[in-house]
Amino acid sequence: MKVSEIGQFPLINKISQLIDDCKDNSVSWQNTIEAAGDDCAVWLGEDVKYFGKVDCQVESVHFNLDVISWQDLGRKALAVNLSDIASMGGLPRYAMVSLGLPLDTEVDDVMSLYGGILELAKETGTAVVGGNISRSLVIFIDISLIGAAGNPAGNYLSRSSAKAGDLIAVTGSLGSAAAGLRLLTGRDQTENTQYDSLMQAFLRPEPRLKEGILLEKMGVKAAIDISDGLLADLDHICSASKAGAKVYLKELPVLPALRNAFPENYYEMALAGGEDYQLLFTAPEPIINKVIENCDYPVSVIGEITEQSEERIQLFDESGRIIKTDKLGWDHLKSR
Amino acid sequence: MKVSEIGQFPLINKISQLIDDCKDNSVSWQNTIEAAGDDCAVWLGEDVKYFGKVDCQVESVHFNLDVISWQDLGRKALAVNLSDIASMGGLPRYAMVSLGLPLDTEVDDVMSLYGGILELAKETGTAVVGGNISRSLVIFIDISLIGAAGNPAGNYLSRSSAKAGDLIAVTGSLGSAAAGLRLLTGRDQTENTQYDSLMQAFLRPEPRLKEGILLEKMGVKAAIDISDGLLADLDHICSASKAGAKVYLKELPVLPALRNAFPENYYEMALAGGEDYQLLFTAPEPIINKVIENCDYPVSVIGEITEQSEERIQLFDESGRIIKTDKLGWDHLKSR
Repeated sequence: MKVSEIGQFPLINKISQLIDDCKDNSVSWQNTIEAAGDDCAVWLGEDVKYFGKVDCQVESVHFNLDVISWQDLGRKALAVNLSDIASMGGLPRYAMVSLGLPLDTEVDDVMSLYGGILELAKETGTAVVGGNISRSLVIFIDISLIGAAGNPAGNYLSRSSAKAGDLIAVTGSLGSAAAGLRLLTGRDQTENTQYDSLMQAFLRPEPRLKEGILLEKMGVKAAIDISDGLLADLDHICSASKAGAKVYLKELPVLPALRNAFPENYYEMALAGGEDYQLLFTAPEPIINKVIENCDYPVSVIGEITEQSEERIQLFDESGRIIKTDKLGWDHLKSR
Repeated sequence: MKVSEIGQFPLINKISQLIDDCKDNSVSWQNTIEAAGDDCAVWLGEDVKYFGKVDCQVESVHFNLDVISWQDLGRKALAVNLSDIASMGGLPRYAMVSLGLPLDTEVDDVMSLYGGILELAKETGTAVVGGNISRSLVIFIDISLIGAAGNPAGNYLSRSSAKAGDLIAVTGSLGSAAAGLRLLTGRDQTENTQYDSLMQAFLRPEPRLKEGILLEKMGVKAAIDISDGLLADLDHICSASKAGAKVYLKELPVLPALRNAFPENYYEMALAGGEDYQLLFTAPEPIINKVIENCDYPVSVIGEITEQSEERIQLFDESGRIIKTDKLGWDHLKSR
C-alpha cells in the first residue's frame, strides 16, 4: 500500500503504535508527558544544560536507496544527530522526525524507516516525541534532537577549547565509511565479506555517545565529531580555538580492509572521506593517556595542537616531510 | 550570487551574522549559551514543561514562489510552528531551521528567507539557535521549535479536554487564508485592495500567542490551532476528547471581503479551507464569556460540545437544518 492510499492520519496512527511499543523507563520517556497526539509534544524540563541539533538526509544527495535499506536509513538519520550530541559529551533526550515523502512511497517502507529510527532510539535512551510528514518530490528525513549535558555541573566539550601543546586523538578508525560507500556504489566488491566492516561503517555508523561522556569525565575540553572529514573537522577546531595543528599520516588509524581495498588512496579517504562519525578531540598528554586507559573503544593519537600559523594544518608523511593538501573535506553545496 | 558559488560555510557565516543582530534580552536569548558555531546549540534548561513541534514547508506542496516572497515564506514557516505553541498556551523559546536548497538558489533570497524568520522570531521572543543547510532538488524549510508552558504550574491547553456542554469558540475569522490563496493563484484580483486582508491572511498569518496564554489563564482547557480547516481540527478535538459537536453555520466569523469575493462558496472555505492559524477552543459558558471580555482580539462562539455520537460533528444551516458534509479539511498525502 502506498502513502497516497492510506492518507496522512492513518499513517501517523501506524507510526504512533510503533512508537508506543518503544516506551521504556529511560529518563527521556519518564519525563515525556505527550508524544504525538496533541499540537506539540510535551516534556518536563530539567535544570540542566540542553543541546539542540538538527540534521537532514536528502535522497540522491546524502543517500540512495540502491545502496542503503530503509531500516538502515532510519538508523543513520538518527545516528548523525546523536553523533553531534556525543561530541558535546551529552546524553540524548528527545527526537522529532520530519519526513518528506513522495506519494508513491510504500507504507511498509515508511514503517521500516521508523523501525530503524526507533531501534537506535531505544539503544540510546532517546524518546521520539514528535514529527511531521509532508508530501515531497524527493525523500528527506530531517531529525531534530535535544540532549542534556552528561556532566551534572554542565561542563561540555566544545570546538573552541583546544590549546597549543594538546595532543590530537580520534576514536575508532578513519576512512572506512568513505571506502564503504565507494564499494557499495561500485557494486563489484559488495559480495566480498572481507570488506563488510567498511560497508557497515557507511550503512550503520555508531554514534560514540559513551566515549563522549567518558572524554568529558576524564577532563577533555575540546571535541568535534568527524562528519565532513578529518581535515575539515580539525580545521573547525583550529578555527574556533585560534590554533594550528600537526598531523602525522603514519599515525592515522585505518582498518587493514581499507588498505587492502584501496591501496592507492586510503590516506585520502582517512583524511577527507567524511561520514566517519568518530570523535576528534584534543587534550594535554596526561588526560589523553587517562582516556586511552579507561576507554573500551580504540583511541589513537594522530598529532598535536600548535600555535596559530598561516597554514592551519601541517600534514607530515612517513618520512617526516610536509605534504600539501587542499582537499579539506566536502562542501556539499559548492559546485564541483 | 548563487549558493553553489558561495559554498556552505561562508553561507552559514552570513546567516550567523544576521542572527547575531537579533539577539536581545528575551528569556530565550538570555538562556542561550551557544547558537551555531559548535556541534550543537546549547541553552540553560528550566524547570518547566516544554513543548516541542516540527513543521515543514515544501516547495510546490505548501508554497509557490510565484505567490509568496522569500521574506514572507520565512515568516510563515516559523508562524505555523508558533501557532502550535500558541494552541498549548505556551511561550516560544528556541527554533532550529533546517533548509533544503537547490544549488542555483540566490544567496540574497536565502538572506531574505532568514530575514523573515528572524523578524517574526524577534517579535515573539524566539531564539534561532541552530540550523542546517542541505542541497536538495526542491526547496524545503523545516523548523523545529521548543516552547515553555506559559503557566508556571505547568497547566496547558490540550485537544483532549473538551467536555459535553462546553461552548466552542474561535479567534479571528475563518476562510480568509484559503480565499487569499485562491485570489493569489488566480491572479485576476490581486490588484484589488478590497481583498488585501484575505491575501495577507495567507501570506502573513499571525500566530495567536497572546491569546493562547490568555485562554489558559482564563481557565480554558481544550484548544487546537486551525491548520487543516475548522471541521478537521474540531474533529481532532472531538476524537481526542471522545465527544461530539454542533456547529452553526450562521455563527462562523467571516470577513465581508470573503463573502464579496466568493459569495458562492465562502462557507466551504470557512469550514474546510485550512491555514487559518486561528485558535479553536472549548470551555463552559462563564469561562468563554471571561475570555471575550478580556481578549483584545475578536472571539466568536460557533457551537457546542455534545456527548459522543455516531456523526461526530453536526452542522446546522441558517434555518436550523442539519447539512451533510464530507469535506473534513485537507489530507495532503492522499491522492485526489
